[in-house]
Amino acid sequence: MTEVVRSFRLTRVLHEDARSRVVNLLGACSYDGQETAALLLMEKTHFSPQFLDTIETGLSHAFSRIESIGQNDIYTWVFGWQAASKNEQADVKMTLICPATDELIAKYSTPERRMVLETPHMYRTVTKPWIDMLPTSKTAWVRNILQGISEQESILYNDDDPKAGFILLPDMKWDRRSLSSLYLVAIVRDESLKTLRDLRKEHIPLLRNIQTAGAQIARDTFGLPPASTDGSATPLRCFLHYMPTYFHLHVHLLSANFTSHPGALVGQAHLLEDVISLLELGVSFSDRTLGYAMADGHPLLHALQEAGYAK
Amino acid sequence: MTEVVRSFRLTRVLHEDARSRVVNLLGACSYDGQETAALLLMEKTHFSPQFLDTIETGLSHAFSRIESIGQNDIYTWVFGWQAASKNEQADVKMTLICPATDELIAKYSTPERRMVLETPHMYRTVTKPWIDMLPTSKTAWVRNILQGISEQESILYNDDDPKAGFILLPDMKWDRRSLSSLYLVAIVRDESLKTLRDLRKEHIPLLRNIQTAGAQIARDTFGLPPASTDGSATPLRCFLHYMPTYFHLHVHLLSANFTSHPGALVGQAHLLEDVISLLELGVSFSDRTLGYAMADGHPLLHALQEAGYAK
Repeated sequence: MTEVVRSFRLTRVLHEDARSRVVNLLGACSYDGQETAALLLMEKTHFSPQFLDTIETGLSHAFSRIESIGQNDIYTWVFGWQAASKNEQADVKMTLICPATDELIAKYSTPERRMVLETPHMYRTVTKPWIDMLPTSKTAWVRNILQGISEQESILYNDDDPKAGFILLPDMKWDRRSLSSLYLVAIVRDESLKTLRDLRKEHIPLLRNIQTAGAQIARDTFGLPPASTDGSATPLRCFLHYMPTYFHLHVHLLSANFTSHPGALVGQAHLLEDVISLLELGVSFSDRTLGYAMADGHPLLHALQEAGYAK
Repeated sequence: MTEVVRSFRLTRVLHEDARSRVVNLLGACSYDGQETAALLLMEKTHFSPQFLDTIETGLSHAFSRIESIGQNDIYTWVFGWQAASKNEQADVKMTLICPATDELIAKYSTPERRMVLETPHMYRTVTKPWIDMLPTSKTAWVRNILQGISEQESILYNDDDPKAGFILLPDMKWDRRSLSSLYLVAIVRDESLKTLRDLRKEHIPLLRNIQTAGAQIARDTFGLPPASTDGSATPLRCFLHYMPTYFHLHVHLLSANFTSHPGALVGQAHLLEDVISLLELGVSFSDRTLGYAMADGHPLLHALQEAGYAK
């Protein structure tokens, strides 16, 4: 059968995922003497244990060629060609962080995760006090954007209302080009809203406005398909995080086609539409038990354990 | 700085993601004449457009060597070494599907996705009738497992109760070894439960039993850490799909560390703990608006559009 594989000629790329280095190709093969439609699914191989072993004795043994892409502070980016490789394109992209602190080492290690089931009581007695104690300097960058001090050139939409207002801008992780990974973020103006837990029925118009403005900008500025005329379908997957990484309410707006973003995972992400629907039904988010994944070493996990939970 | 990169020697692998072909390494570099701790983040490069262009003229131009791994019916698996590569390990893993039908071509193409916002009215008038109309033969394989006809050797836990009973088995996608990607599935015995929409307060004990049995099996059979003594933390991320791919209620149980599973995405997955909490608060899942991602070509999307929605 490798003869049939060898005869494959590409007609069209059907699917590509640059993050997982996968392409699905449509083409034709000579099969039983006939030109026959065929699919070829290609994926890069993972780093082998043997390859990693080589690096124990030094990087030069693993790569025949290393070329600089850029450098900034402790970060250096390079392309590498594996030892015996003569490919035109580099085989590996590398980021060197040197010197590395313990904090950076922890950041790039696999954390052990667990699901915390936060009851309303745990929220009131541990989580909320912990959030309230965080220094306001941690969200200074958010206020800088809202007050027109930083990133003004990025703002896509601005509603000045102190209660129902918000700004919409591209997420820093988005390249601002690839439609399939479109990623916007809406930051609300009302500083009293820190998380999902603070949402009440009165915030439904705010959330709906974010949804509408997002769909409009996604269409008008970036060319995503429009929302359906009856409102029952949108091209965006909008969600809030709980636990978020910063405590100033914000909504993530992703292309519905962007399915490989780790932040969109259940156990962290709550679909905006589901949140609105629950608020409409009178559910109070401060009275719910909410589950979320926590990595070992997270200071909130530490606070919860100090209080006797999640041990 | 490439000198510093070149001096890197590996101490320890901090993180590995075989699906996205990424490793984070801890090691040491000579930096300012000193042995200094350094992080090296490596990722395989994606397929370049130039490489794909080469395949238009034939696969033999793109690969210098192709080796068979296996073959079954229309599927052939091979390893490939890129044209100029002399690496020990293959650069690319490929699956050839030949002959390919239109259905298979559609399956491996990027589908255009949208978020459907399904109101209770849409559910009652379109989705529920569509589910009820599906031939029972589609879930025959589920009944075969429940009735002891198939996969009996896989069953990890069995509760025979016709109402509150369920079986627990490893998901077919799990290799049954890698703890970090542990993936079990619980299939309930009550055939009247087709989706999340059918859940009522009376089903809370069933859902809690699944959670408890899952944590027990994950610990006793596979060695995952135990749930916390107060019940406020578990090593499992448990969720239900809406829309599911088959309409017989089942719960997915994943290691909380398994964060790259596309089925755990918000807009399809609902955390079991959140579902239980909402049922406790008296929320009726048939009265909620539920958002879910739908790919073009899904027969339910077609049914909804026929009824005038999501156009």
